[in-house]
Amino acid sequence: MKIILIGAGNLAWHLTCNFIQKGIEIVAIYSQTLTKAQELAQEFGLEQVLVTNHLKKLAQLQADVCLLALKDDVLPNICQQLQLQPNILVAHTSGSQPLNILQHFKNYGVFYPLQTFTKGKAIDFSIIPLCLEANTPNNELILRKLAQKLTSSIYTVNSEQRVVLHIAAVMACNFTNHLWACADRILQREHLDFHILQPLIAETLQKAFALSPKQAQTGPAKRNDVQTISKHEQFLAQNHTDLLPLYQILTKSISSYYYPS
Amino acid sequence: MKIILIGAGNLAWHLTCNFIQKGIEIVAIYSQTLTKAQELAQEFGLEQVLVTNHLKKLAQLQADVCLLALKDDVLPNICQQLQLQPNILVAHTSGSQPLNILQHFKNYGVFYPLQTFTKGKAIDFSIIPLCLEANTPNNELILRKLAQKLTSSIYTVNSEQRVVLHIAAVMACNFTNHLWACADRILQREHLDFHILQPLIAETLQKAFALSPKQAQTGPAKRNDVQTISKHEQFLAQNHTDLLPLYQILTKSISSYYYPS
Repeated sequence: MKIILIGAGNLAWHLTCNFIQKGIEIVAIYSQTLTKAQELAQEFGLEQVLVTNHLKKLAQLQADVCLLALKDDVLPNICQQLQLQPNILVAHTSGSQPLNILQHFKNYGVFYPLQTFTKGKAIDFSIIPLCLEANTPNNELILRKLAQKLTSSIYTVNSEQRVVLHIAAVMACNFTNHLWACADRILQREHLDFHILQPLIAETLQKAFALSPKQAQTGPAKRNDVQTISKHEQFLAQNHTDLLPLYQILTKSISSYYYPS
Repeated sequence: MKIILIGAGNLAWHLTCNFIQKGIEIVAIYSQTLTKAQELAQEFGLEQVLVTNHLKKLAQLQADVCLLALKDDVLPNICQQLQLQPNILVAHTSGSQPLNILQHFKNYGVFYPLQTFTKGKAIDFSIIPLCLEANTPNNELILRKLAQKLTSSIYTVNSEQRVVLHIAAVMACNFTNHLWACADRILQREHLDFHILQPLIAETLQKAFALSPKQAQTGPAKRNDVQTISKHEQFLAQNHTDLLPLYQILTKSISSYYYPS
C-alpha cells in the first residue's frame, strides 16, 4: 500500500514511524512549512520520498491512500485546494470533522486514531483504537486493511458518533486531567507531593474498567456522607474558593446519579 | 512485631494478607461480628490467634501495635470502649479521623494506607503510600518500622494534611471516576463501547504524572476552542441536560486556570 501524507506534525510523525515499521510505503510528504516535511523525511531516512510544500506537485502522483494528518483549523482549506488522481482514497484523521468535508473527492473516508500524541515519545500503536468511516463499503475495506497493519482495535464510527466520542473523551480525559491539576494545587499548598495519589488513581482506573465506572464509584457523595462533604466544602470555601462550585456540582451529580429523587 | 487487629473487613483482610507474607505476627483479631473474625483467621490459617467479639478479652493481651481497621462510623465508639496494656501503641487507619480521637491512650498514632481496597482482590502493598502520624517521635518510629515491612512509600502526614489529602483524593479519584461514568453513559446511548476510551485515559494519566497535570492539559477549553465547546454544549442540552452544567463549570474552571482575567 502506498501512502501520500499531508502534514508533518505530531500525528504525521507517529503515523510515519508506524508505517515504516509495518512496511507501508510513503510516497510523498506535504507540509505548508517545507522544513517540517524535510525534517520528518530525514528523521526516518525517507530519501526516495517526494517532499514538498506545493499541493500541485501531488496532482499526478499515484498512491492508494492520501492521509490528511492536519489540525482542524487548516484542514478545510487544504481539502479545498487538494487535487489528486481520482482513484486515490483521501481520508482525514480528525475526531471533530465530518466525513462530508471530503465529498468533492470520488473516494474518501475518515481514519481517526483515538489517542493523544506527543512528538518524539513513541507510543504502542497496536492498542490504539482506529475509528473508520468511508463513503463506500469498499473504501471502508481499504481503510480497514491499512488499519489492521497498525492495530487490532478497529471501530466503524460514523460522523455523528464521532462527535459524541469527542465529547466523551473531553469528559473522560481533559476534565479528569483538570481535576488532577486541582488536586495537585490543593496538595502543593500543604507541602504534599501529587505523586502520593498515583497508586490510588491507577487502581481507580483499573477498577473502572474491570467493573464499570458506575459500579466502581466510591467516596462521600456515593455513600451520602453529608458530614464529610460539609467538612470538605468548608475547607474549600476558606482556602480554594474557586474550587467550591466544582466540588459541589460534582457531588450533586454523583448524588442524583445514585439517589435519584 | 506482634499485632492486635481490630476489624475484619476489607482493609483488615489486606493487612492480614500482607502481614503474614512479611512474617509479622497477628496475636488477636476482633470483630463485632464474631463470624467475620473467624472467617478472616480461617482464610489465612491463623489457628493460634485469639478471635473474639469481646473487647474486654484484649485487656490483658501483650502486643506491640494495635491497629484499628474500622469504618469511620464505628471507630469512635470502639475507641472509647477499648482498653489495652498501656505500652501497646494504638493506631487507627482512617484518612478522615484526627489523631486525637486516640488521646486517652498513652501511645497512639495513625497508620493510613492511601488506597482503595476490594475484598479478595490482592493488591501489591509495596507501592501503596502509608501515611503516618504519632503522639511521640518514638511512636512514629515504631509505626515506620512496621510500615517499612510493607512498602517503600512512607509519608509523615499530620491530621490537617490528612484532611486535605482526602479532599484531593475525592477530586482526583471519586470525581474522575464519576466523569468516566458520565462518558460511559454518553457512549452507550450511541452504541459505543466505553473501552474504546481506555488507551486514551491510560495515556492521559501517564502524561499527567510524567509532566504535571497542569502541563499535560489539552482539549477545547485549554486551547480556547469556542466553536467546539458550543457544539458540545448544544449536544448535551439536547441529549443529556443534567450533564450540561457539569460540562460548563469544568470548561470554565479550565479557562480561568489557563487564561486568568
